Amino acid sequence: MLSGKKRVLIENIQPQVDDGLYPAKRTVGERVDVTAAIFGDGHDHIRGEVLYKKQGAEAWMRVALTPTYNDEWHAAFYVLEKGNYVFTVQAWIDHFETWYDGFKKKALAKVDVTVELTEGVLLLKQLGKTNTLLLSVARKLEDKNQDTAINYVLSEDFARIVHENPLRENVTRSEKEYVIQVEHNKANFSAWYEFFPRSSSFEAGKHGTFKDCIRLLPRIAAMGFDVLYFPPIHPIGKVNRKGKNNNVNSQPGEPGSPWAIGSDEGGHKSILPALGTLEDFKHLVSEAKKVGIDIAMDIAFQCAPDHPYVKDHPDWFKQRPDGSIQYAENPPKKYQDIYPFNFESDDWKNLWEELKSVFIYWIDQGVKIFRIDNPHTKPIPFWQWVIAEVQKKHPDIIFLSEAFTRPKIMASLAKVGFTQSYTYFTWRVSKQELTEYMNDLVFGQSRNYFRPNFWPNTPDILPYHLQHQGENVFILRYALAATLSSNYGVYGPPYEFGENSPIEGKEEYYNSEKYEVRHYDWKRTNRLTDIMSLLNKARKENKALQSTWNLQFCPIENSQLIAYLKATDDLANIILVIVNLDPNNTQHGYVQLPKATLRLGEKINVKLHDLVTDEHFTWTQEWNYVHLNPHKMPFHLFKLEVHESNM
Amino acid sequence: MLSGKKRVLIENIQPQVDDGLYPAKRTVGERVDVTAAIFGDGHDHIRGEVLYKKQGAEAWMRVALTPTYNDEWHAAFYVLEKGNYVFTVQAWIDHFETWYDGFKKKALAKVDVTVELTEGVLLLKQLGKTNTLLLSVARKLEDKNQDTAINYVLSEDFARIVHENPLRENVTRSEKEYVIQVEHNKANFSAWYEFFPRSSSFEAGKHGTFKDCIRLLPRIAAMGFDVLYFPPIHPIGKVNRKGKNNNVNSQPGEPGSPWAIGSDEGGHKSILPALGTLEDFKHLVSEAKKVGIDIAMDIAFQCAPDHPYVKDHPDWFKQRPDGSIQYAENPPKKYQDIYPFNFESDDWKNLWEELKSVFIYWIDQGVKIFRIDNPHTKPIPFWQWVIAEVQKKHPDIIFLSEAFTRPKIMASLAKVGFTQSYTYFTWRVSKQELTEYMNDLVFGQSRNYFRPNFWPNTPDILPYHLQHQGENVFILRYALAATLSSNYGVYGPPYEFGENSPIEGKEEYYNSEKYEVRHYDWKRTNRLTDIMSLLNKARKENKALQSTWNLQFCPIENSQLIAYLKATDDLANIILVIVNLDPNNTQHGYVQLPKATLRLGEKINVKLHDLVTDEHFTWTQEWNYVHLNPHKMPFHLFKLEVHESNM
Repeated sequence: MLSGKKRVLIENIQPQVDDGLYPAKRTVGERVDVTAAIFGDGHDHIRGEVLYKKQGAEAWMRVALTPTYNDEWHAAFYVLEKGNYVFTVQAWIDHFETWYDGFKKKALAKVDVTVELTEGVLLLKQLGKTNTLLLSVARKLEDKNQDTAINYVLSEDFARIVHENPLRENVTRSEKEYVIQVEHNKANFSAWYEFFPRSSSFEAGKHGTFKDCIRLLPRIAAMGFDVLYFPPIHPIGKVNRKGKNNNVNSQPGEPGSPWAIGSDEGGHKSILPALGTLEDFKHLVSEAKKVGIDIAMDIAFQCAPDHPYVKDHPDWFKQRPDGSIQYAENPPKKYQDIYPFNFESDDWKNLWEELKSVFIYWIDQGVKIFRIDNPHTKPIPFWQWVIAEVQKKHPDIIFLSEAFTRPKIMASLAKVGFTQSYTYFTWRVSKQELTEYMNDLVFGQSRNYFRPNFWPNTPDILPYHLQHQGENVFILRYALAATLSSNYGVYGPPYEFGENSPIEGKEEYYNSEKYEVRHYDWKRTNRLTDIMSLLNKARKENKALQSTWNLQFCPIENSQLIAYLKATDDLANIILVIVNLDPNNTQHGYVQLPKATLRLGEKINVKLHDLVTDEHFTWTQEWNYVHLNPHKMPFHLFKLEVHESNM
Repeated sequence: MLSGKKRVLIENIQPQVDDGLYPAKRTVGERVDVTAAIFGDGHDHIRGEVLYKKQGAEAWMRVALTPTYNDEWHAAFYVLEKGNYVFTVQAWIDHFETWYDGFKKKALAKVDVTVELTEGVLLLKQLGKTNTLLLSVARKLEDKNQDTAINYVLSEDFARIVHENPLRENVTRSEKEYVIQVEHNKANFSAWYEFFPRSSSFEAGKHGTFKDCIRLLPRIAAMGFDVLYFPPIHPIGKVNRKGKNNNVNSQPGEPGSPWAIGSDEGGHKSILPALGTLEDFKHLVSEAKKVGIDIAMDIAFQCAPDHPYVKDHPDWFKQRPDGSIQYAENPPKKYQDIYPFNFESDDWKNLWEELKSVFIYWIDQGVKIFRIDNPHTKPIPFWQWVIAEVQKKHPDIIFLSEAFTRPKIMASLAKVGFTQSYTYFTWRVSKQELTEYMNDLVFGQSRNYFRPNFWPNTPDILPYHLQHQGENVFILRYALAATLSSNYGVYGPPYEFGENSPIEGKEEYYNSEKYEVRHYDWKRTNRLTDIMSLLNKARKENKALQSTWNLQFCPIENSQLIAYLKATDDLANIILVIVNLDPNNTQHGYVQLPKATLRLGEKINVKLHDLVTDEHFTWTQEWNYVHLNPHKMPFHLFKLEVHESNM
């Protein structure tokens, strides 16, 4: 039988994901805002607190909850170490506070409080059992002169005593403890540059190598990127190899798609000989590390027909009645260069273990980041298992989910463990689309598990709004990606150099690098290269840009202008971004400073420094005029200084 | 280790309350709409089904889920018996359906399907293990003439075979089973008439008795009510008894408030002698039953200072340091005629048992409905326990929660077991307020546990909009209560007779019947009496008005006119209500018929019969002109006949 004395109920504790089925995610140093519905019967005062600790620790830390509105309560704490935290909520009727509140009202109404003073003494003596200082407080309530006693209870001193001495009796504690998975900062803050290592040669017509990639590192580091992401580097299938522009019949000498993995040269644990050796790769990884860059490896769990797995483990693939192996298809289309794994194989346990060993193999070579190709075409329970297995020993490994698919599936992959996820940002173009999407990401339930990584383009996607367009739209989309989301990336060379030719009618690159080796003039830089570099520099130097979760849109009276503030909790770093979404015309309008967030008083004096154009402004009004000529610069990246005198 | 072959995930199963912590509520015959998010990897076809049964039964019943949008699925079933049902959801990749879909696309694209036919044979043989008829189907796919085989697979016959033969392999089943508490119909459909039995005398100046109440039964039955609700009928405290208009000093002979329960004449299991004997009460209960009326008893768990409990169980009350017992207070106000129970008493178990025995005692006298006074001032866990305890033996007992308090507390009381609940309807006046509130109640999460009972007034509440107003506003508020909610009630005599005098500035009756005996001329009826009777008659004769959950608002182009449709699932009964919220002026506007709901075609021919005014109309347009003169009748209560030819 339950204890009948517990009169408080606790509901809807946040943050949690699917009622605790999955952990909520944070990174080191992030704030955890805990909310819960807490209520009881009658008018007695309720107090509540969050208990939290590192998972496995003995002692709980406490932080008091305070009511906000409608029986919702709030508390916040910071997670300062990597690893899992647990938290729960407890609350109780506090008879000391209830008594104190009643006493004040009665005393102020000049009602006789003789008995109430005695009640106060008894409560203080009860509290005195654990805090003996309160016994002397109790004695003051027994003062012969009742007015002295009353005035003491009405004093600020006494208010502080009540505040600091909760009387925990008949405490209701949530039956559940919720887990917060705290990861290292890079899970939340990273800038990715993608290119095909085979296109890394400085000489036209030559197949690039890892050695060429090492020569490119200073260029990428100078641009400020900290993740260098390669499409698959494994041997490419020779059977049914695709040719230029996805031609089903390749010409001799064509390199094929890196995603058609495996040949007689090896499979997922091998390297395409044309790129170099394992030693070359490890050297690249360590050279990159020296300039602050992690190599991200593309993991595509699928096989070319000549992948060693096909011969060694035919039971990992679907056999057709005619003895052939089932290739990928989207009926009536056939993709005969790709064999998908059959995850319903009777030998699924060995398949899972082998795929896990692929991660472990590359981790042992120094890889710390994996970009997972099409995870939504492999079972979600597999990802849940394999990510947990890998992170058990290697908790710092980052998994990026390349799932451009339906919302619930993208969400589920993030819930079960993916560190970061590709998003719909690629297709969110208008002010309304961007605002709604960002508010969903930042303030919706998915905030607790879905870490966005924004990409304006990928080798698979040249979105319509970039097609046949000049560099202004490339710049503004890039600025949005790099400032809205603390994780972002770009399929670099074609973006930098403004490639904008699609296969007509499709969102795909014409002459896609997926099917051929390209040559880029790596010594060249241009306006976009410079802006990318400045944006990355600003991101590194401004903590406010290192989180996606501190976003606040600012009203601006023009549907082509979008404005948002990002600030650190302590307001030590404040960034205001304003982007002109119209790549062709100057747009102007008034933007509203968020006075409450910035703690601005009546006299406003805000200094603004544009970190890209190096312009300086001073704003002395709540609403301020802005105009952006996209041919000059389609966005402002303001660092704000709010003068103390206003605060 | 989990089974790696299960590739489908199931999330967010509805209906459920707090992830299954509490049952969802339905009444006999109601529809249960089950929804769930169901998805897997890749493009294989998923099938899903709801499994449901009476709790404890062996065999599950199945109903197929169908996808709606965004990976949400839906199925419905009807609960036809009282008691608890359980349901769960399962889903799987259906390789038969996946094969069939691919086959069709390939065959229509004239791709060679030789291997596909063999695959189909193998799948049919697999299904043939449980349905041998399918073996002959398989043979048709082996027809020597491949065109014959292909045409057979493309036939409607074969489509039906696929539809009717799910291939359940590697089924994912939700780990949870959710409970649906199915109660008898009165939980969902009831009309309450409240009056003070002491005011039941036909003679002015006389204290009414249960015998007088029996004389009143034909009048109440004729008006169509099926619940007669009395304020407490127990002995009234003599110590600190309140006088007229809540005067703290009563005059000798004043009757006191029925909610100050207990005196030397007895407590919660006794009857105020002036009302009659226990036998009189039981006779009243059985006479009421004969005319289809249940007596609802008011349970107020609080005591007058002279209640026998105070002497017999002083430990059930809070002792003050001076030896006195703590009276109710809202500092600095004191309510010295009421002692609340101390639910934190060390003897709480005996207190709970005693309070439970109060319910059992009155159930044994024939009472089936309890209206609980201020449940929000007693611990919510107590209600959870006592309602479950009572309903264990007496599942048909109805508990109405009189909690006019904060939303989460009202919700919680409903979750833990209250059958019906008082609502904010009493204060929802404008079209926007009513629309938002109804949409919350009907389409919000609380639909699964909170059954509203709408009251335009109570002995405690004469809302501002009824004060100093004529009968038009009484009529329109009554019509709203009786048609928006299938459970509703009225504090009858003062409403019928148009009492509209408040204590100025408060929402309370002047000369409240709570503190005095009133005399009503029970032989009198008036316009309101007639309309109340007609509304109750319409409710009884029209199934569409016997549910709160079938509400659909209809657009109407006037902010003072509100229109809503209620229809049975089979459209056998359709009611359209239109209310003029302006009691003083004729309002007119166009109302839109919901074509989709009514399955109206291009040619509209709808006959309308106003069940109150007996007017007849024919509408042949989607938008139809309506005008309502409140001095004639402030609402339409239309029964609709939709001609078959349109459907």
